[in-house]
Amino acid sequence: MKFIHTSDWHLGRQFHSVSLIADQQAVLAQLIAFIRENPVDAVVVAGDIYDRSVPPTVAIELLNQVVNQVCDELNTPMILIPGNHDGAERLGFGAGQMKHAGLHIISHFDEMLKPVVIHTKSAGEVAFYGIPYSDPEAVRAAFKTSVSTHDEAHEFLSQKVREQFSPQQKQVLISHCFVDGAIESESERPLSIGGSDRVSYEHFTDFDYVALGHLHQPQQRGAAYIRYSGSLMKYSFSEQHQKKGMTLVELNQDGFVAAEPVGLTAPHEMRIIEGELNDILEQGKTDPKNQDYLLVRLMDKHAILNPMEKLRSVYPNVLHLEKPGMLIGVEQEMAAARLARSEIDMFRDFFTEVQDCELSAEQDSAIKTIINQLSQQ
Amino acid sequence: MKFIHTSDWHLGRQFHSVSLIADQQAVLAQLIAFIRENPVDAVVVAGDIYDRSVPPTVAIELLNQVVNQVCDELNTPMILIPGNHDGAERLGFGAGQMKHAGLHIISHFDEMLKPVVIHTKSAGEVAFYGIPYSDPEAVRAAFKTSVSTHDEAHEFLSQKVREQFSPQQKQVLISHCFVDGAIESESERPLSIGGSDRVSYEHFTDFDYVALGHLHQPQQRGAAYIRYSGSLMKYSFSEQHQKKGMTLVELNQDGFVAAEPVGLTAPHEMRIIEGELNDILEQGKTDPKNQDYLLVRLMDKHAILNPMEKLRSVYPNVLHLEKPGMLIGVEQEMAAARLARSEIDMFRDFFTEVQDCELSAEQDSAIKTIINQLSQQ
Repeated sequence: MKFIHTSDWHLGRQFHSVSLIADQQAVLAQLIAFIRENPVDAVVVAGDIYDRSVPPTVAIELLNQVVNQVCDELNTPMILIPGNHDGAERLGFGAGQMKHAGLHIISHFDEMLKPVVIHTKSAGEVAFYGIPYSDPEAVRAAFKTSVSTHDEAHEFLSQKVREQFSPQQKQVLISHCFVDGAIESESERPLSIGGSDRVSYEHFTDFDYVALGHLHQPQQRGAAYIRYSGSLMKYSFSEQHQKKGMTLVELNQDGFVAAEPVGLTAPHEMRIIEGELNDILEQGKTDPKNQDYLLVRLMDKHAILNPMEKLRSVYPNVLHLEKPGMLIGVEQEMAAARLARSEIDMFRDFFTEVQDCELSAEQDSAIKTIINQLSQQ
Repeated sequence: MKFIHTSDWHLGRQFHSVSLIADQQAVLAQLIAFIRENPVDAVVVAGDIYDRSVPPTVAIELLNQVVNQVCDELNTPMILIPGNHDGAERLGFGAGQMKHAGLHIISHFDEMLKPVVIHTKSAGEVAFYGIPYSDPEAVRAAFKTSVSTHDEAHEFLSQKVREQFSPQQKQVLISHCFVDGAIESESERPLSIGGSDRVSYEHFTDFDYVALGHLHQPQQRGAAYIRYSGSLMKYSFSEQHQKKGMTLVELNQDGFVAAEPVGLTAPHEMRIIEGELNDILEQGKTDPKNQDYLLVRLMDKHAILNPMEKLRSVYPNVLHLEKPGMLIGVEQEMAAARLARSEIDMFRDFFTEVQDCELSAEQDSAIKTIINQLSQQ
């Protein structure tokens, strides 16, 4: 049997004030097209489906479309857990009704203990257990136990799940957590401060496959069957070299067979361009990917009028501009100016800049008096 | 066949900063207990299920509980439309999946044209059509038509629905609108300004029953089968004398038979008490309903120290205090004082009241100078 493991969709995310919803829709259309061509037994989403607990309406509508296509049109069950970005109760409304149509949203601990069982020819019964994202406090309160770290919480929860195992079933775990030693990206929101969010992969070794969410870079941890699928698409410039996509997992009667990455391509890539303005403008004229979301690092050392406007004439989606070259120049100039010019000179410049006219004689005299008074204090 | 018609639950509503969720839960428990004792073929909620488009989590959890009990435990289908307080897209997430479990949320116009058909012994097939609440602009955009008022929009929409009629079916319409001539309450939010939200009942006469929502007072309009169930409970003090509840509707092979109000009682009533403080305090000592949510109108004419504190010692849920008696006294006093006392006298009083001490000689002199300067301008 085969299933798709994906996570960290972050539907509704904004990136430098630009909505990514059209990109997310395009990438999810690729996911749906893949399933249409390569039928699977289930689609698993390991948390952070939405970017925040109260998602914008467009994000809700997009998830609704995806669910209608996957569950209804393609007749493929979906199994979702909330992540740290999702609002579990909000996401979980109607879960009891939706499961009859193959949409399984595991947002309470009691649902965690009742697996979604999928009957397959090649691997028999496969039980999918989901741990809804929860911090140690929530686990402590729900189970009257004394766990105090994310690691203890996951040790406890995975033990609870293991107690439900049926020997004739294959066992898949879905969890949204930070497995110790795994690689972070810039676009994740920490689960807690100072490394106390780390969880040992060893709690997960009894499962046939562990579908992880939270970290945005695809990676395995501890074993080939304990994996992060990575996020749906890039959510920071620092991820420019990461290959994004989903994971196609295969199980048979003996358990884990393979986990294969399947690439998904966002219409706009996120990348960093570094260089002098004129070189970048020249290169932009023939760049086939000139619609990408860009961070531009201008290395010019002299001041440039309206660099953003100039860059956007060839790269319309420059979202952020850094001027490490110019900053050095500007700082030197400002320091020199501070030494050379008196306070009253600087105020005159400031006034002219802001008001578009010079100080009157009366104003000039008043500000001189004030500056003198202040400097005598 | 019988079904429940209810509307305007406003789950998550606050009343004078007090959450009504526990009262709403208690009232909905009565609704569920009624169905358990008196099985019905459906439960219809005619909009304003939530109090706002992004409801608080507790409201979502309460609706989830109700849905689980009605649809799953009692195996009774529910048919919901959004009202002007609900966010249609938000409420409608997963509608395509939930309908298989008997939860029908009609939040798009295309769902409006596909009735929920319930098969009954006594009335044959009954088709429930829901119009999701929408202003004329939304109707104009969706259907490329030229309607400009709520009346024209409902004429158009009900005509669209009538085109779907099957002769062998009974027809029920669910709509959230303001039927012309019906009685308003204070707790409704106007659909538009200046009476342009009124809709003629004549668009609805072809149906066997019309389950209306929006107005909070139970009432019929134009015919016995065109009705408002009224809100789940009282949502303003002005509704103190309204009988709240739901409507039990009966249809047979010939159509409408009867619509019978079924009372629901909130744990806390909302009511107004008027009188002098001492009388109210005395009466409160033996008032069996001393936990009610109260607006108290104190008729005393003299000033009273901490009246709220005194009242709450016997009526803990006084939510609002009016002092029409004292106000007259206060105004007269203030006018007399204004005539008799100078500005400096009044400032001295104010200062003493606020600072709990008298003006120093220096302060007194300073304020005199300022007042003199101001009065000479």
